[in-house]
Amino acid sequence: MKVPFVTKSQLDQITAQYPTPFHLYDEKGIRENARRLNAAFAWNPGFREYFAVKATPTPAILKILAEEGCGVDCSSLVELELSEKCGFTGKNIMFSSNATPAEEYRYAKQLGAIINFDDFTHLAYFRENVGDFPETVCCRFNPGGSFQVTNDIMDTPGDAKYGMTRDQMIEAFRILRDGGVKHFGIHAFLASNVLSNEYYPLLARVMFQLAVDIKRETGIAVSFVNLSGGIGIPYRPDETPCDIMVIGEGVRRAYEEILAAEGMGDVSIYTELGRFMLAPYGCLVARALHFKHIYKEYVGLDACAANLMRPAMYGAYHHITVSGKEDKPCDHIYDVTGSLCENNDKFAIDRPLPEIEYGDLIIIHDTGAHGHSMGYNYNGKLRSAELLLCCDGSVRMIRRAETADDYFATIRDFI
Amino acid sequence: MKVPFVTKSQLDQITAQYPTPFHLYDEKGIRENARRLNAAFAWNPGFREYFAVKATPTPAILKILAEEGCGVDCSSLVELELSEKCGFTGKNIMFSSNATPAEEYRYAKQLGAIINFDDFTHLAYFRENVGDFPETVCCRFNPGGSFQVTNDIMDTPGDAKYGMTRDQMIEAFRILRDGGVKHFGIHAFLASNVLSNEYYPLLARVMFQLAVDIKRETGIAVSFVNLSGGIGIPYRPDETPCDIMVIGEGVRRAYEEILAAEGMGDVSIYTELGRFMLAPYGCLVARALHFKHIYKEYVGLDACAANLMRPAMYGAYHHITVSGKEDKPCDHIYDVTGSLCENNDKFAIDRPLPEIEYGDLIIIHDTGAHGHSMGYNYNGKLRSAELLLCCDGSVRMIRRAETADDYFATIRDFI
Repeated sequence: MKVPFVTKSQLDQITAQYPTPFHLYDEKGIRENARRLNAAFAWNPGFREYFAVKATPTPAILKILAEEGCGVDCSSLVELELSEKCGFTGKNIMFSSNATPAEEYRYAKQLGAIINFDDFTHLAYFRENVGDFPETVCCRFNPGGSFQVTNDIMDTPGDAKYGMTRDQMIEAFRILRDGGVKHFGIHAFLASNVLSNEYYPLLARVMFQLAVDIKRETGIAVSFVNLSGGIGIPYRPDETPCDIMVIGEGVRRAYEEILAAEGMGDVSIYTELGRFMLAPYGCLVARALHFKHIYKEYVGLDACAANLMRPAMYGAYHHITVSGKEDKPCDHIYDVTGSLCENNDKFAIDRPLPEIEYGDLIIIHDTGAHGHSMGYNYNGKLRSAELLLCCDGSVRMIRRAETADDYFATIRDFI
Repeated sequence: MKVPFVTKSQLDQITAQYPTPFHLYDEKGIRENARRLNAAFAWNPGFREYFAVKATPTPAILKILAEEGCGVDCSSLVELELSEKCGFTGKNIMFSSNATPAEEYRYAKQLGAIINFDDFTHLAYFRENVGDFPETVCCRFNPGGSFQVTNDIMDTPGDAKYGMTRDQMIEAFRILRDGGVKHFGIHAFLASNVLSNEYYPLLARVMFQLAVDIKRETGIAVSFVNLSGGIGIPYRPDETPCDIMVIGEGVRRAYEEILAAEGMGDVSIYTELGRFMLAPYGCLVARALHFKHIYKEYVGLDACAANLMRPAMYGAYHHITVSGKEDKPCDHIYDVTGSLCENNDKFAIDRPLPEIEYGDLIIIHDTGAHGHSMGYNYNGKLRSAELLLCCDGSVRMIRRAETADDYFATIRDFI
C-alpha cells in the first residue's frame, strides 16, 4: 500500500489557498532520502550525487539538495544557466549532454563544470570550436550489445545513442592526456528505473574494470567513476523499493575487489540520480470534476497530460489515492482522465479505486521527478504551480502556475 | 518521393537571417489546400471548416485560414482566448472540449461560440454552474464497440473517452430542446489520420442516419453535422494522399441518399480538420551538427523532441530530406537524433539517406500540425521560432523562439 505524504486535512488547508491542480513536494522526504544515499556511500570519501536537473528543474528543490551536499547534472545550456543562478559553481556541476552545440560546451567550460564527453568525435569538435580542454573531464562509455542488469533483466546499450565504445574510450583518454587534461572520470548510463539492488553493483563492476583497463593500457588513473542514474522507485504498490544501503554496500564490495585490489583505492564515486532523489517526494494533486458513464466509467480531473506526461508518453503507471478515502475499499473501476483532446490523456485505465465523488482530491503519486518538467502546452493547456510542503509543516509556492500571457509570450502579432 | 516546398537556395537565404532550428510554413500550400477543401464541399451551402487550433495555434496561420473562410475549433480556455484575440467571433468558434471546467463553458457562452457537449452529464453541470443553454449547441456521439473505418481498418470508439451513447444523445436532445435550445448539431470523431477516401463518407452515413433517427424519435431537425477530424496525410513517401474531391463527393452521395431522401436537405456540414489543413505545409528545419560512429551511425541535429515530439511520443514517421541532396542516392543508414537526454529522442531510426555532412540543412517534413504545438521544455530545451514563407516568396517570423527568460518566468526565487 502506498501512503501519501500529505493528509486530507493538510490538503484541505492547502487547497483553500492554492487552486488545483498543483505539484506538491515533501521537503522532509527529500532530505531524509538524500541523507540515506550519502550514508550508503559514506565509505567513499569523495562520493557526490549530482542531481539530474532535468528531473525537477526548480530552484527551491535544487537548494534543498545543495544543502544535503549534492551537485547538479546538467544536460543543456539552460540547465547550466539555471544551476549558475542557483549558486552552483565549478566542479559541483556535471555537464552530461549529447549532440552538444559548441556554445553549450563554451558555457560549461567557463563555469568550470566537469564536461562529460558523450562521443569520441566531440574531442576534435571541442578543440576546434571551444579551445583547450579543461583540466578535469569525463568520458561516457557505451559497452554495446546487451548488458545484464540483474539475473532477470537485460538492457541493450547497443541501441542507445549515448557514449563511446571501449576502443574509443582508450583513444580518447590518450588524446585528452596529450591535450593537457589532468583529472579523468568515466561515466555510463546503461538502464533506467531499475528496481533491483543488483544493478548499481553490476554497473560498478563494469566501470571499475574499465578504470583498471584504462590504467593498464594508458597509464592514466581515473579520479572518479560516475555511475549516473538508473536506480528505480516502486511506482506500483506491490513493488519493493530498492535498499540504498544494500546498493552502497554492493558497490563497496566491487570497489574493494576490483579498484582497491589494483591500488586504485582513491577513486571517487559520483552518481547522477534524478528519479530516485525526487519522484516519491512529489505528487500531483487534482480535483474530480466530471463522471462519465458510457461504455466505461470515467472520472475527469482538472489536471491533464500537460501536468504529467508519463502515462500518455510511456503508458507509465502512477498510483492514485483518493484523499481521505485511503481506507475505503477499491470497489469501483475507473478510467481517470485529463481534459486533453488526445485519447492517451488518461492517468489510469481500468483502475480499482474507492467511489469518487465530485470535488474529491485526487493524489497522483510519484510525480516528483520527470513530472512538471515534462509538461507541455498542447491544447493551450497551462502548466501548474509547484508547492513545497516544508519540514515545519508550512507550504510555500516555489513555482507559479503559467498564465495565458506566458502562453502568448512568443506570439508576434495577433491580427 | 516527397518534395520539400522550399529549395536549398531559399533555405540558405532564410538561415542567413534566422538561426536553425525553426518551423517553416508554406502560405501558398495552406491556401490552395483550404480552397480544395471548400471546393470539395461546395455542394453544401452551409459548409464550414473549423480549424483544430490545437494543431497549429499560431495567429498568422489562423488568419490565413480565416481569409479562406475557416472558423476555429477550440479545446480549452486559452485556445478560446487566442481565437478571440485573432478576431474570431460567435459561430465561427466551435468549442469541442472534454472534462470541461465551468469557467471554460462560461467563457465559450460569453463569446457566442457553438458549444459541443462531450458528455450527457455536462448538461446538468452546465445548467447548474453556467446557466441557460445557448440557442445553438452540439452533442458529441460515440457509437461504442468498433467502427469500420474502411474495408481494412477498424477503430474502437468504445475505448475512447469521448462522446455520448446513442440513448444519451436522444435524451440530451430532449433536455436541450426543453431548455430552450433552437439549433442543434451532432459531432463525432471516430478515427485519426485515416489515409482513405472511404472514412469520411462512412462516418457521414453513421451521422446522417443518427440525424434521421433523432428527427424520428424527438422531432428535432439538426442544423449541422460536424464530421470533425480524421482525414490523414501521407507521412511516408510510398503512401497515397487522400483525394478531397472524392471524399467530398462520397459525403454528398451519402447526404443525398440519407438526409435529402428524408427531406433534410438543409443540413450544413462542418469539419474540424487540423492535420489535413496544415501538416504537409510545415516543416522543421535543422542543421546536422554531429556524426557519431559507435554500434550504429548517428547524425545529431540542433533540433530535438522539444521541437517535434511525434517521433518520441508515437514512434511516428516523419520523412527527412537533406536539402540540396534531393537527387543523391540514399545509400547511408542513419539514426537521426536530437540532443535530449532521452533515448526516444530520435527523428528517424535506420533511415536510408544521402551522405550527410557537417552543416547540412535537414528538412523534417509534415510538421505543420501537432509539431510546434506539442513542444515541451524537457531538459531545459527551448521551443523554436515559426517562420512563414509567404505567397510572394518573402519570409516572416510569426513566432519568436523561446529564451531562457521565458523558461525562468514561473520561477519564484533562485536562491
